[in-house]
Amino acid sequence: MFESAELGHKVSKEQYKKDSPRLRQELLTKQFELINGKSFSVLILIAGIEGAGKGETVNLLNEWLDPRHIQTHGFLMPRPDELERPGMSRYWEALPAKGKIGVFLGNWYTEPITRRVLGEISKVELDRAVTDIVRLERMLAAEDVLLVKFWFHLSKAQQKRRLQALERDPDRRGWVKKQDWEAFRLYDRFRAVAQHALRLTDRGEAPWTVVEGADAEYRNLTVANTLLAALADRLARKERAETCVPDTTPPLPRPVDDRNVLTSLDYGRKLPRSRYDREKDRWQARLRALTLKPKFARRSVVLVFEGFDAAGKGGGIRRVTQAVDARIYKVVPIQAPTDEEAARPYLWRFWRHLPRRGRITIFDRSWYGRVMVERIEGFCSERDWMRAYSEINDFEHQLVEHGVVVVKFFLAITKDEQLRRFREREQTPFKRFKITAEDWRNRKKWTRYGHAVCDMVDRTSTDAAPWTLVEANDKLFARVKVLRTVCEAIERAL
Amino acid sequence: MFESAELGHKVSKEQYKKDSPRLRQELLTKQFELINGKSFSVLILIAGIEGAGKGETVNLLNEWLDPRHIQTHGFLMPRPDELERPGMSRYWEALPAKGKIGVFLGNWYTEPITRRVLGEISKVELDRAVTDIVRLERMLAAEDVLLVKFWFHLSKAQQKRRLQALERDPDRRGWVKKQDWEAFRLYDRFRAVAQHALRLTDRGEAPWTVVEGADAEYRNLTVANTLLAALADRLARKERAETCVPDTTPPLPRPVDDRNVLTSLDYGRKLPRSRYDREKDRWQARLRALTLKPKFARRSVVLVFEGFDAAGKGGGIRRVTQAVDARIYKVVPIQAPTDEEAARPYLWRFWRHLPRRGRITIFDRSWYGRVMVERIEGFCSERDWMRAYSEINDFEHQLVEHGVVVVKFFLAITKDEQLRRFREREQTPFKRFKITAEDWRNRKKWTRYGHAVCDMVDRTSTDAAPWTLVEANDKLFARVKVLRTVCEAIERAL
Repeated sequence: MFESAELGHKVSKEQYKKDSPRLRQELLTKQFELINGKSFSVLILIAGIEGAGKGETVNLLNEWLDPRHIQTHGFLMPRPDELERPGMSRYWEALPAKGKIGVFLGNWYTEPITRRVLGEISKVELDRAVTDIVRLERMLAAEDVLLVKFWFHLSKAQQKRRLQALERDPDRRGWVKKQDWEAFRLYDRFRAVAQHALRLTDRGEAPWTVVEGADAEYRNLTVANTLLAALADRLARKERAETCVPDTTPPLPRPVDDRNVLTSLDYGRKLPRSRYDREKDRWQARLRALTLKPKFARRSVVLVFEGFDAAGKGGGIRRVTQAVDARIYKVVPIQAPTDEEAARPYLWRFWRHLPRRGRITIFDRSWYGRVMVERIEGFCSERDWMRAYSEINDFEHQLVEHGVVVVKFFLAITKDEQLRRFREREQTPFKRFKITAEDWRNRKKWTRYGHAVCDMVDRTSTDAAPWTLVEANDKLFARVKVLRTVCEAIERAL
Repeated sequence: MFESAELGHKVSKEQYKKDSPRLRQELLTKQFELINGKSFSVLILIAGIEGAGKGETVNLLNEWLDPRHIQTHGFLMPRPDELERPGMSRYWEALPAKGKIGVFLGNWYTEPITRRVLGEISKVELDRAVTDIVRLERMLAAEDVLLVKFWFHLSKAQQKRRLQALERDPDRRGWVKKQDWEAFRLYDRFRAVAQHALRLTDRGEAPWTVVEGADAEYRNLTVANTLLAALADRLARKERAETCVPDTTPPLPRPVDDRNVLTSLDYGRKLPRSRYDREKDRWQARLRALTLKPKFARRSVVLVFEGFDAAGKGGGIRRVTQAVDARIYKVVPIQAPTDEEAARPYLWRFWRHLPRRGRITIFDRSWYGRVMVERIEGFCSERDWMRAYSEINDFEHQLVEHGVVVVKFFLAITKDEQLRRFREREQTPFKRFKITAEDWRNRKKWTRYGHAVCDMVDRTSTDAAPWTLVEANDKLFARVKVLRTVCEAIERAL
């Protein structure tokens, strides 16, 4: 992939002076369409060889475009605190909002390529990292992020000349460090590893542009032309790039009998109050003890609470939080997204709340809203929620790979029990706020919610992050099952 | 302050059962007024002695109120990465939005009190920390944050009984650690230090409530009553608590002659192109070299660019960024706030962008908008922008205390030069986006902007963070002055 970028491309200063004003103008026009339309965001990935013009390109973009709508993020190799959360967290947090341009200098390619060059990971591990990147980029493209990926290249001879020239310059001699010459000695290996990674990640929804970096004029015009073409194309289409084939087949047809994961639950399960008090006490003490173990400080925990309205999510959560030092957990109630959240891929608002080591994040409702309420209420298209199953599996897989203990609860009650609780809520003054017209509306869609739950469990109950269905007609039974499941999951992990 | 909280307060279970439903109901009603009104936020600080019910109170709040609008943050002693940014950063980032309730378990009182008890800081240092807290809380109150501060207390005898009881319980024995008994040995000292800190920070805009923690029913009712009263009072007033006396006297009267910091500048200063090329090159090389020094990795830099429209802020910023590795700097253009930003005290959006060690944040416009555009356009009241001078000085003082190099530029041009540049922008296609109707409108307020600049420089040019006024009629001169000033400031710091 680098052959065309080792030909000694060059553009004369005169040509550059002639071409650049028009290019700048066109780029700005397109940027304003982007800003005003706010229908997608642009993410420019800048990668490549040292000294090939990466930093200069960042300056070019900020000079030629309206810099108030560009945000550049520089990523170095992860620091200790960044290692406390799943590797992609810092990139996720930096994703641009719709209408904005984000520039990632250093990005998700840097670490796997560098580590492979240094021999820290195997070829197979590199390929796996690359596969994850492909899935991530496909998802971003489907979530209205226009990906523009630049790889800046220098031939081996050019790189050598560059380092030597710097060393001859008295003002710049100090810029060349020992590690620059060490990197040069690894040139061939770096080129081969990069070529491999680029080939596997050069895809329709996120193609690479390899830019020869030696001649500034050539480089600048190439970057500007590429970005302009990508912007113009996307703006003309008005719709996002859909990947040709959906990630997942349509939800399973309903079983022809009435058996499913919900109807098979034994809703008669009960715990008498006296046994409840004893068991609750026992599991809470155990949970507390687990969180005090030194090993716990090296793990983190994500609890997901989903369930039918009035199934007792809040009560279940509180029995967990009662047992844990309030300084190590955070409860995140999921509501309507803020404008910062709505302007980004739907998983962004969950990434920003992931726990660091030794901490617990409890999601009161979660990313499963995508395949539940958003599906049923038509807040997203069928294609959107259909691809969400595999996107969610990828997301949870990353958590688990990072050592996060993921426990997902669905609290299930019967339709009659829900009615009883709704009425009780209406009659108890301090519970009245928990019951709204929307709850009654949702209740009318009981069957459709049930189908969505079954699809969700079938498609996202994985080895890594299985669902726990909780028979919640009896609150006492449900709370103890929640506590026990949390304890057992943490125990297995420690 | 603890005498009333050592009397063995108690509420019977019957009384509690009788009183609590009404209290819950009233609290919820007030919370809904808060949620719907979105005119202020509530920040509940929870502090006090170990085992006096802090965590239980967090659970109570989440049970009695609508937990979807409460966010609890637990703060432990700062971790290494948290120490890389000014100490208050983590609290600032966690501030609740209007309409929400934030609960800080562990907060800005924890660290100074703990460190004083352990003898790590002197009495004078404690008092200074406490003074900073008073200023912070006064500002938060003025920025529509209702502060409710609880100190949970146990008498020495109660604390001893609690630890002994835990040790007798086979399920809970493990909870009592060696450090709990160590803390108990420091009880008297802790009580004295806390009493001192509480006395100094018990103020009208943010009073303390000391709660005896031994009896759960008494504790819960006290917390609920206190919060209810605070909410009801604030909701009834509809307006925020104004501190009685403004922090600062009104801006100085204009000098009776025409001399001021702007008119005294020599706008004729110029640099010929050839000298510019040489000087720019030299200072950029120096800046690069400075950022590569090992010592630089232990500091951070904040650059502020303010100036008249078309004065060349963007060009000045780019001459800096050209010299620095793009992975260590971030340019933050200040525009209209997002809804997350608008719902919080005005400095919040700047705190969230402060650099960690070894990094540079460049603000393209800044917090000085408060005393410039917001003052002139009437976006905030006179009282608001008048108190902003001292709030900004406090803010910058914290940065400098933390070792941040703060450099503030005001780029000044003459009115004629602005006109010339506006016209040039209109005539150059790729510069046209830089000139809007708003720029022409602002230009009509030239004199008032000038006065605001003079007041700003007079009131916020401090030893710690002085202003650099840049004569910017000649862009080349201005850019070199910017580069030189940045270099010299970093050099002084290293």
